[in-house]
Order: sequence, then C-alpha cells, then structure tokens
Amino acid sequence: MKGFQNGVYRELSEIGIPITSISINRGYGAFEFFEVINHKPFYGERHFARFRHSMHCLKLKTSFDDQLTQVVSELIDQNPFPDFYIKMFALPHDSFRDGNYEASLYIFPVFMPDYDQSLYESGAHLLLKNYLRFMPEAKSTNYLAGQFWCDEITDSQIVDVLFQSEGIVSETSRGNIFSVRNGTVTTPRQQILKGITRSIVIEILAGLGIPFEETTIRTGELLSADELFLSSTTKLILPVTQIDNTPIGNEKPGEITQKIMTEFQRIRESFRNE
Amino acid sequence: MKGFQNGVYRELSEIGIPITSISINRGYGAFEFFEVINHKPFYGERHFARFRHSMHCLKLKTSFDDQLTQVVSELIDQNPFPDFYIKMFALPHDSFRDGNYEASLYIFPVFMPDYDQSLYESGAHLLLKNYLRFMPEAKSTNYLAGQFWCDEITDSQIVDVLFQSEGIVSETSRGNIFSVRNGTVTTPRQQILKGITRSIVIEILAGLGIPFEETTIRTGELLSADELFLSSTTKLILPVTQIDNTPIGNEKPGEITQKIMTEFQRIRESFRNE
Repeated sequence: MKGFQNGVYRELSEIGIPITSISINRGYGAFEFFEVINHKPFYGERHFARFRHSMHCLKLKTSFDDQLTQVVSELIDQNPFPDFYIKMFALPHDSFRDGNYEASLYIFPVFMPDYDQSLYESGAHLLLKNYLRFMPEAKSTNYLAGQFWCDEITDSQIVDVLFQSEGIVSETSRGNIFSVRNGTVTTPRQQILKGITRSIVIEILAGLGIPFEETTIRTGELLSADELFLSSTTKLILPVTQIDNTPIGNEKPGEITQKIMTEFQRIRESFRNE
Repeated sequence: MKGFQNGVYRELSEIGIPITSISINRGYGAFEFFEVINHKPFYGERHFARFRHSMHCLKLKTSFDDQLTQVVSELIDQNPFPDFYIKMFALPHDSFRDGNYEASLYIFPVFMPDYDQSLYESGAHLLLKNYLRFMPEAKSTNYLAGQFWCDEITDSQIVDVLFQSEGIVSETSRGNIFSVRNGTVTTPRQQILKGITRSIVIEILAGLGIPFEETTIRTGELLSADELFLSSTTKLILPVTQIDNTPIGNEKPGEITQKIMTEFQRIRESFRNE
C-alpha cells in the first residue's frame, strides 16, 4: 500500500511523524476520511472542501491545499484496489508563525470491515455521554473522549456514543443523528461536525418530499422519537433502536429510515457504475 | 541529542511515529514533562508516578512501566547537558485489546527558553476561556484547545489561558492557579491536573505555616483576590496581575507570592547542589 507524504508517494509502512511534532504533543491536526468506490472518491469534492474548512478553523496550511483532487486521484492510481477508504491528515510539526501553522499533508488507504448486515435489520444501540467537542465544526485529531468511550463498548450491537451537553443532543463520536416524529425528520443544527453523509441525507429528504428541519433537539425529545438513524461514512444510514436502556419507537428500523437507506444505497450503487 | 524509542536509544531526528498510529488519528496518549537540573530529574519520582496514573486513566500499558527511573537516568547519561527538560509519551498505535492499549514509550530531551525575568517582577497576564478538559486528572496529548488559544496570545505579558466552566475556575492550559485572600491561600481542588509544582507549593505553604485550602473557586472570587500566582514546570512560581482586562490586587506580585517564589528557588538551588 502506498501513501502520500507531503509530496512523495511511498510505502505506507515507511511514513512516520517526527516524535517532536506538536501534532503528537498537542493532539493538533485536521483529519478527513472518505470512501473510494470503484477507484473513485465518493463525494470527494465535498470531503476536500470540508478538509479545507477544518484546516482553516485550525489555522493550518499545507503546500497542497489547492491540489487535493489531483493528489488523491494519483494516490488511488498508485494502489491497485477498487474499494477502500482514505484517511487524510494535515499535521503541523512546528509552532505557530505569521498567523498559521505550516502543516504536512499525509494521505493513505485503509481497509475497514463493513458493519454486520444484521445491524441494519435489527437496529443499532448507542450510549449517551455528557460531552461537547471543542470546535465541533472542524474534523480534527482531537478525539480522546470518543476513542476512550468507544473502548467501553463491549456489546456488539452498540456502535457509538451519542453526545449531549446541558440536555441538548449534538452528534455521535463518529456520525450524525437524525430523528423522525410524525413524519418530520430533524437533526441537530449546531455544535456538530457537518457530515458529508448528513448532507446527502438532507438532499434525499428533499428529493423524497419528506418534511425536514435542522433544529435544537433536547435529549428527551430524541428518546421519544418515532424513529432514529445515524449517518456516517462507514455506517452509511444505520437505524438506531436503543439509547442506553431506552427503546426507541417500536424498536425496529422505521419506515422513513428504510426509505432513506434504500435511496442512499441506490445513489451509492449508481456512483459505482457511473 | 538522543531519545528513547521503546527500548532503543537513538538520534532524536530518527524517531518517528507510524502515520497509521491511533495516537495521531485520535490524539490519544499519555504525556509527562519535567526538568533536569544538574543531570538529575527534578522531583522525578513524582512525575513518574503521575505518568503511571495518566497511563492508568487512559488504559495504556508499556513494557517499561516499572523501569521509568532507570530509563530516564540512562537517557540523561546519553545526553551531555546538565540542564534541560524531558518529554515522555506513552502512545498506542493499535486498537484496544483485552482491557488495555499496548503503548510505545518515547522519552527525549528538549530545550525551552526561560520566561523573561521581568515577568516575575511585573506579574504576568492570563486570558479567561470557557473550557473544561476531558479527563483533566490525566496529562494527555488531548490538547487542541490549549494550543489553539495559545496561538491567539500576541501580547508578551500574557503567558497562558485560564479555564473556567459554569463559573468555576479549574486550571490554566499548562499550569495551576493559586489565590491569596486575607492571608489564606486557596487553589482549585477538582477538575484539574494535579501539578507537581503545585504539590511543592502545598508543601512550602505547610512549611511556612501559611493557611491553605483546596476548594472550589468561583471566577468572581478569583478576580477579586489579593494576590494570584501560577505554578508550572517551566514558569515555576509566577505572579499573575491581570486576567482579561481585570487588574488583580494592587497589580504587583504580592507578599505571600514572593515568599513562595523565594522558597521555591531555594529548594531548586539546593537540589542543584545536592
């Protein structure tokens, strides 16, 4: 497997970060993650735009900010697999100077197992945690809490932790949450990372004519929803049927959730065959 | 300069972290930082104990957990300088397994400039920020917020950001805060990293017979204190005379603060000459 190290394509196992880097000492860096389907980045341009936004929030600059499309395309060409994921990091090694951190760009392929198909039929469970990420609109490497709590997950039906703060729900550690009540879909508007899969869901809802609102969602409202589902790059559209010990709706993937799952799969397959 | 990389002493510039490490992706790792004075770690055993505590909180294990004293001593021998600082990291590269992360241990020397002596005479300034670190009792690499805000500091008299959450003061991004009012010294008791310099201050207070309490400190109380000072490994004991735009006391290093500064310097010099 080949990775990209700030201008050079080399064996992934040969790419290292200097131990003196502030990206290690201070957990400082921009991160992006997306799927490659049939040798093509799935919604690549949206991911690249978000990566640039995260870099802007974190005051990071690389020498490749305007060439992400072509660098990623070349990386895909250098790796002989049709389907995988890509991780992309902008990591500063030295201190702040003249309004920015000079960062190095790292891009490399990863393989991730699919989630078990039975989860899409039974619905997944979440754990609720009191937490609000710092600067949630940036996808960063500042991720200790999510990683820490995910280690506590031993039940295979629990797929992530859901963050609430002062009674308001924001996001899961690695995805966005949607609620369905009386036929209307809502999702948190603020204090979240705006997921690319989330943006696709919003377009699907418009296309299907399903009423939708980005709003503030209190934990109690979420727990009493008719249906819940997650959106994420690896989980796609995943029904949620339990949070902590509270069952959601009738504890089965809901009707609207299933419509969105079907439409999302259609979009993905059509992208594959384009 | 030589560093320690999980069992091997090598040139610092040759030590790298695999780009695939979850220590990078998730900002996950234990961190420790201490001073070497005249070839000896200053309060080394306390720093090693805290490092082990941080590792425990983060569920990290290295092959060297019981040999920190001798590994650090050998690293000091391999570097021909009497006075410097040491950074120490336990970084996990792979996922959680059997209740722990298997982590690699990295230790290396760093040089840091002293703070300008005039700051100790005029007093330093702090910026107040609404923030509470995740798992504050562990010294970790989860440090984005502190790093981010420190970049905003352009005035040379401002040395750090002070965190408050729901009107309660906790700590600065890199040190502990002490308040003096009517001859009694107080410092936040909870939601802080328990600094080693903080522990030395507490012993000095007992030795000098100065009334002292670990307690909950509201922001308003702190701002109306007679004297404030910081404790940290690099700043030592540093008077604080302004927070945001609020002057503290008579805007000069206070009498009790100066007694503690003097005693701390005496301890440090006596350690040097031991």
